[in-house]
Amino acid sequence: MPYTAPLTGVVPPLCTPLTPEGEVDVDSLLRLVDHLVAARVSGLFVLGTTSEAAFLTDRQRRLVVETTVAHVAGRLPVLAGAIDMTTPRVRERVASVADAGADAVVVISPFYAATHPAEIARHFRLVAAASPVPVLAYDLPAAVHTELPADVVVELARDGVLAGLKDSSGDLAGFRQVAAGVRAHPAFTLLTGSELLVDAALALGAHGAVPGLANVDPHGYVRLDRLWRAGDTEAARAEQERLCALFGIVRVGDPARMGRSSAALGAFKTALHLLGVIAGPTTAEPQVPLSQEEVNRVEGLLIEAGLL
Amino acid sequence: MPYTAPLTGVVPPLCTPLTPEGEVDVDSLLRLVDHLVAARVSGLFVLGTTSEAAFLTDRQRRLVVETTVAHVAGRLPVLAGAIDMTTPRVRERVASVADAGADAVVVISPFYAATHPAEIARHFRLVAAASPVPVLAYDLPAAVHTELPADVVVELARDGVLAGLKDSSGDLAGFRQVAAGVRAHPAFTLLTGSELLVDAALALGAHGAVPGLANVDPHGYVRLDRLWRAGDTEAARAEQERLCALFGIVRVGDPARMGRSSAALGAFKTALHLLGVIAGPTTAEPQVPLSQEEVNRVEGLLIEAGLL
Amino acid sequence: MPYTAPLTGVVPPLCTPLTPEGEVDVDSLLRLVDHLVAARVSGLFVLGTTSEAAFLTDRQRRLVVETTVAHVAGRLPVLAGAIDMTTPRVRERVASVADAGADAVVVISPFYAATHPAEIARHFRLVAAASPVPVLAYDLPAAVHTELPADVVVELARDGVLAGLKDSSGDLAGFRQVAAGVRAHPAFTLLTGSELLVDAALALGAHGAVPGLANVDPHGYVRLDRLWRAGDTEAARAEQERLCALFGIVRVGDPARMGRSSAALGAFKTALHLLGVIAGPTTAEPQVPLSQEEVNRVEGLLIEAGLL
Amino acid sequence: MPYTAPLTGVVPPLCTPLTPEGEVDVDSLLRLVDHLVAARVSGLFVLGTTSEAAFLTDRQRRLVVETTVAHVAGRLPVLAGAIDMTTPRVRERVASVADAGADAVVVISPFYAATHPAEIARHFRLVAAASPVPVLAYDLPAAVHTELPADVVVELARDGVLAGLKDSSGDLAGFRQVAAGVRAHPAFTLLTGSELLVDAALALGAHGAVPGLANVDPHGYVRLDRLWRAGDTEAARAEQERLCALFGIVRVGDPARMGRSSAALGAFKTALHLLGVIAGPTTAEPQVPLSQEEVNRVEGLLIEAGLL
Repeated sequence: MPYTAPLTGVVPPLCTPLTPEGEVDVDSLLRLVDHLVAARVSGLFVLGTTSEAAFLTDRQRRLVVETTVAHVAGRLPVLAGAIDMTTPRVRERVASVADAGADAVVVISPFYAATHPAEIARHFRLVAAASPVPVLAYDLPAAVHTELPADVVVELARDGVLAGLKDSSGDLAGFRQVAAGVRAHPAFTLLTGSELLVDAALALGAHGAVPGLANVDPHGYVRLDRLWRAGDTEAARAEQERLCALFGIVRVGDPARMGRSSAALGAFKTALHLLGVIAGPTTAEPQVPLSQEEVNRVEGLLIEAGLL
Repeated sequence: MPYTAPLTGVVPPLCTPLTPEGEVDVDSLLRLVDHLVAARVSGLFVLGTTSEAAFLTDRQRRLVVETTVAHVAGRLPVLAGAIDMTTPRVRERVASVADAGADAVVVISPFYAATHPAEIARHFRLVAAASPVPVLAYDLPAAVHTELPADVVVELARDGVLAGLKDSSGDLAGFRQVAAGVRAHPAFTLLTGSELLVDAALALGAHGAVPGLANVDPHGYVRLDRLWRAGDTEAARAEQERLCALFGIVRVGDPARMGRSSAALGAFKTALHLLGVIAGPTTAEPQVPLSQEEVNRVEGLLIEAGLL
Repeated sequence: MPYTAPLTGVVPPLCTPLTPEGEVDVDSLLRLVDHLVAARVSGLFVLGTTSEAAFLTDRQRRLVVETTVAHVAGRLPVLAGAIDMTTPRVRERVASVADAGADAVVVISPFYAATHPAEIARHFRLVAAASPVPVLAYDLPAAVHTELPADVVVELARDGVLAGLKDSSGDLAGFRQVAAGVRAHPAFTLLTGSELLVDAALALGAHGAVPGLANVDPHGYVRLDRLWRAGDTEAARAEQERLCALFGIVRVGDPARMGRSSAALGAFKTALHLLGVIAGPTTAEPQVPLSQEEVNRVEGLLIEAGLL
Repeated sequence: MPYTAPLTGVVPPLCTPLTPEGEVDVDSLLRLVDHLVAARVSGLFVLGTTSEAAFLTDRQRRLVVETTVAHVAGRLPVLAGAIDMTTPRVRERVASVADAGADAVVVISPFYAATHPAEIARHFRLVAAASPVPVLAYDLPAAVHTELPADVVVELARDGVLAGLKDSSGDLAGFRQVAAGVRAHPAFTLLTGSELLVDAALALGAHGAVPGLANVDPHGYVRLDRLWRAGDTEAARAEQERLCALFGIVRVGDPARMGRSSAALGAFKTALHLLGVIAGPTTAEPQVPLSQEEVNRVEGLLIEAGLL
């Protein structure tokens, strides 16, 4: 993780392959890393929401970081999530992933307990003060049920607390406000977590993207990023729209039977399984698996997208 | 924790006294246990939301359970929370608190990841199957941002998965539906987490109450419970209304400066400090403390309630 | 509408019978009024949410009030809703229903535009200042998406702005706070809009109830009210639980096919149609009707409740 | 309103100037129309949210349309909102504004009553079937508390029900989905209601913008639109960022004292007053006015933006 320039390009948030018993499938994880590195992504993000970090035990989390870091062997920066509820617990998670070799940590706002923006800022300050590696903030209101205000991010960037932001808020107006506010801090890394608006985010000042769908089609996102940087916005837009269609896989799971996490992560893992990257589509408990008919629809979308 | 009859009466969710450095203040915890036992509460609930469980590390959580269990020495049942995000992590928390001596565990719905009611039911089934002690469900939508549907609770009661429910939903209509549904299961324990509607909940079929404010005024809640059971609903109502006025301490903290957790837990701990039960009002990071003026207002309400 | 004592007992919020073309079915409305008066309700509330007031044109609303007032001919107070978005529009609705003969108006918080509690208070003050008849506030957060804070209600009661409250918030703790706060104002009418917690609300200080289900079973609610007032809380509870089971009709409509309004109002009207009170179950556009299979399930619940 | 090609460019949603007594200030309205026409906007949208349509009586609404249509005299298309709760009421509003001369109507999803997406679609079909002028849908979840799903919009565009969409959802991913879906319908008009993301929306396929802030700085938005169409995306972005800074006027009103409507509409009207376009900043009841200090801060932002 560079301290002096932003991280650019595609940084996939890795799925965590699991055995049918719910253990980390290390062989599949290594193949997934290879699959992504081969597509020339710019970095890897483990233990995020897409990684089912909320479902992994602390031991499993550590195994994921150690495995990934060892396999990557410095070829790319490895960012690791430190998802937990509050400052004291997040500090422990940060220490653990840093000790396991992560180049940077990605830290979310407190959740479960109701917090005030001033407490959110305080959280990031305390966590960063104790972190041996750079800290990026992770804005995911759908998970934590608070907003990370743009002015808080800008203040924390200015004070050197945050080295970057992964924005999964869906609020591009707030993203634009952050982009304008951190322009004075040239090493600050601004990443979008959107699968659907990477070109729009790059136009607003994003340095890169962390799309969960990049597990499935890393080449597509790398192409999109390069086309956009080369100034070919029309071709970038066409690539983005192809990826938007592919993202339809997350709407395959029946909402009458499963939550959004099961549907999205089940679709990513099913696709990776169909592509031969991972050994099986198991998601962690209490998520429910896709039905065979839903698997077939994922397969159909992979074919339409030219991946199968 | 009895398996053959519901737990009745007042089961305070213990605050976790902290040193100024954020460590568990064991001496203060012992005094708090004594303070509650002396008031003739029916059980103790540690590691709930009021206990700041979301802020305690796993080591601290274990210390709280071990300390409480050892000190209580079987005089009262000790229930312990197992607050974590998902099934695999909760299973670990359950094993830990059971190993530390808890008589029952209190388990909340999954949070952080978006879930479906069917996944919530699956979560409780999987957690209970692996638990060495009875499992009570904990319904706290304000923290987990999902509802625990009444029909799910009734189904899990019927199937012997759940031994009880601590309801902090604020939805008395749903509570009534659960009460009607579990009437056929005479050992099922139905507890309200409300500070303000204990008499109403008892009238609807609650067996007992888990009010955070009982840390501050356990005698009041025990009186309310006994008056109600003795059929003196008017006196119970008067006692409840006195406690409603005292509950005003949670609205003292300025919402422009702090979240609801800081305000509520700060008020409880400040009151316990002013009452001489615990050594200091420290709450865990990133919560912010009450100002001196706010402390004075808490003191005023304690005086009005006849506690100082 | 008495000014010197609260209105007590059951005040049904009348359904508005419609012809298949969506016009007010005056004959059915008259039969519905007779059905309710015969059950010895204490007052009638027209143009509320249950009346589909949000779906009626201003001309239709006026027709409903005039028809009801003329038919009741002073035997009972007639309350009328004045549902509209903001102060200037509500003032017009108030003038219209008062001119049409309503004894009191029921006014909801502003909606559509985002408001502050201070603006909500200002709204009630301005509306009441211009109203020729007493004003009751209507707390229905599910429709207006703001809360009507208890302290605002108490302040407006104290200042003589409000003559009463119809509480459909589902928040009994707030209801208790209002009840305690208005005890000093003996003419203030406190009504619950709950179908499921009438006994609990009476115990907390409600004077009466405005349950939509009383269209279908006015005798049941009148019995419940009388039993409770006679001190027979156990029999009142049994009657309430019978009505809770009957309320299952609002969950018959398939949520995959219709919204909650279609399901609830469709169920009430279907039941009234099956009971022979109104000529047909038509609800206003864009609501969708119950299917024949759903109608059959409503019929089954009416039979179980002893109404058919 | 053309039926054969989309409406492009800037279509300001006009503020409705009010006298201190709350009447429509016709002279100020005429000056505001002139102010906008002189800036070469492409159309005018009256009776939208920015117009305080939710606060205007039906008589006032009609006056606004008639005044504007007469003054514009065919130079530009005049779109009019038909904001009301449900299908029967909206049909009346549509008839009224069409009769008053509007070239097209802008219709929002039902609100107040809880609806299902199928009922929302049905609403638009029924309203459009009865409308003498083209119907655009208005997606404003902040007001109606439901989402207008992209697939519903695309289906209604395909079936010729909708002539366009004004999107104020803040969800650019959904906007992109609509844009892709309506590409096959070349006369469909896709407008963004965002003040902050006009360039991004144009890049995604918007034909034009309906920014409330264009009341204050129509020249800025027209410049932005032209720069973007001319392919000078960098200059468009700079203009957009200048307007983002100016939009800070909506955050001047103290949220401890007023709702978002008072703050936003108060700021727009205060700015128009300071710019000499309208005679006074009065907003409709129960909104509260900006304080003198807040007015001064609006003035400061106008100066920074080069408008004063």
